[in-house]
Amino acid sequence: MTKELPAMTLKAIGVVRNKVRQAPKAGYDWWGIVSEIVVDSSLSDALANLDEFSHIIVLYWMHEAVVTGQMPAKVHPMGKRELPLVGLFASRSPCRPNPVGKATVRLMQRQGNILKVKGLDAVDGTPVIDIKPYIPGYDSVVNAGVPPWITKR
Amino acid sequence: MTKELPAMTLKAIGVVRNKVRQAPKAGYDWWGIVSEIVVDSSLSDALANLDEFSHIIVLYWMHEAVVTGQMPAKVHPMGKRELPLVGLFASRSPCRPNPVGKATVRLMQRQGNILKVKGLDAVDGTPVIDIKPYIPGYDSVVNAGVPPWITKR
Repeated sequence: MTKELPAMTLKAIGVVRNKVRQAPKAGYDWWGIVSEIVVDSSLSDALANLDEFSHIIVLYWMHEAVVTGQMPAKVHPMGKRELPLVGLFASRSPCRPNPVGKATVRLMQRQGNILKVKGLDAVDGTPVIDIKPYIPGYDSVVNAGVPPWITKR
Repeated sequence: MTKELPAMTLKAIGVVRNKVRQAPKAGYDWWGIVSEIVVDSSLSDALANLDEFSHIIVLYWMHEAVVTGQMPAKVHPMGKRELPLVGLFASRSPCRPNPVGKATVRLMQRQGNILKVKGLDAVDGTPVIDIKPYIPGYDSVVNAGVPPWITKR
């Protein structure tokens, strides 16, 4: 199936800068972590108006999770062995066929090509591939259903 | 800056199948559109437990929006000229440095490697690059702020 599809190559539009220098264990509390996203300066104009939104969606390349060998089909969520083994795509494990992370974060400030955000779960040096405004009517769901093991996180 | 970063190449994990054969105009109402995501059959086991979630996040490659020339730094949201010109990253325009779309959709059914979803804003044949469970505490924001022009959509 994949043979008929076009090549898909990403280019970094920026990089994450924060105090988290190496990947912490699963379950690390990222909510208080403040990061700077240093966007390529050629893209500054494209960031205009972004700070009219309180929150943004960041897509990033989880470069430390790139898997070279066989990928597990099932994982314990958050690496917790007391939780059931579930399908990889039913988890947020970074070890995925395409290690693209998606975070919804608070945009604290924009200064030129630098975005100050809170709660981004990405280590220092992570390549950023896209930034989108968070639009509740499009990005959020009222009364979404989740399995009971999610609440054990 | 980008020179020091690693190569990032995506592989399709599946493809969108629906009745929308060519890109409709901006503002098209996708909410009622039912699609099938046909995932590579080698990944069926990795889809286990996904249907314990009512909604999933789909990342996909907007192959019809790949820009070969110069990209505009500013756009009219939804292509509506009556709305202010805003920075590209403050919009959801598909014409972005990396044309990766992100949709939160209702998972109606899973049968083996086929996911039936509602509301996916991607045309027939769109390559899918990741599927994640929608987890409210992580993916949604209470009282997010948006600019007034968003409500004019």
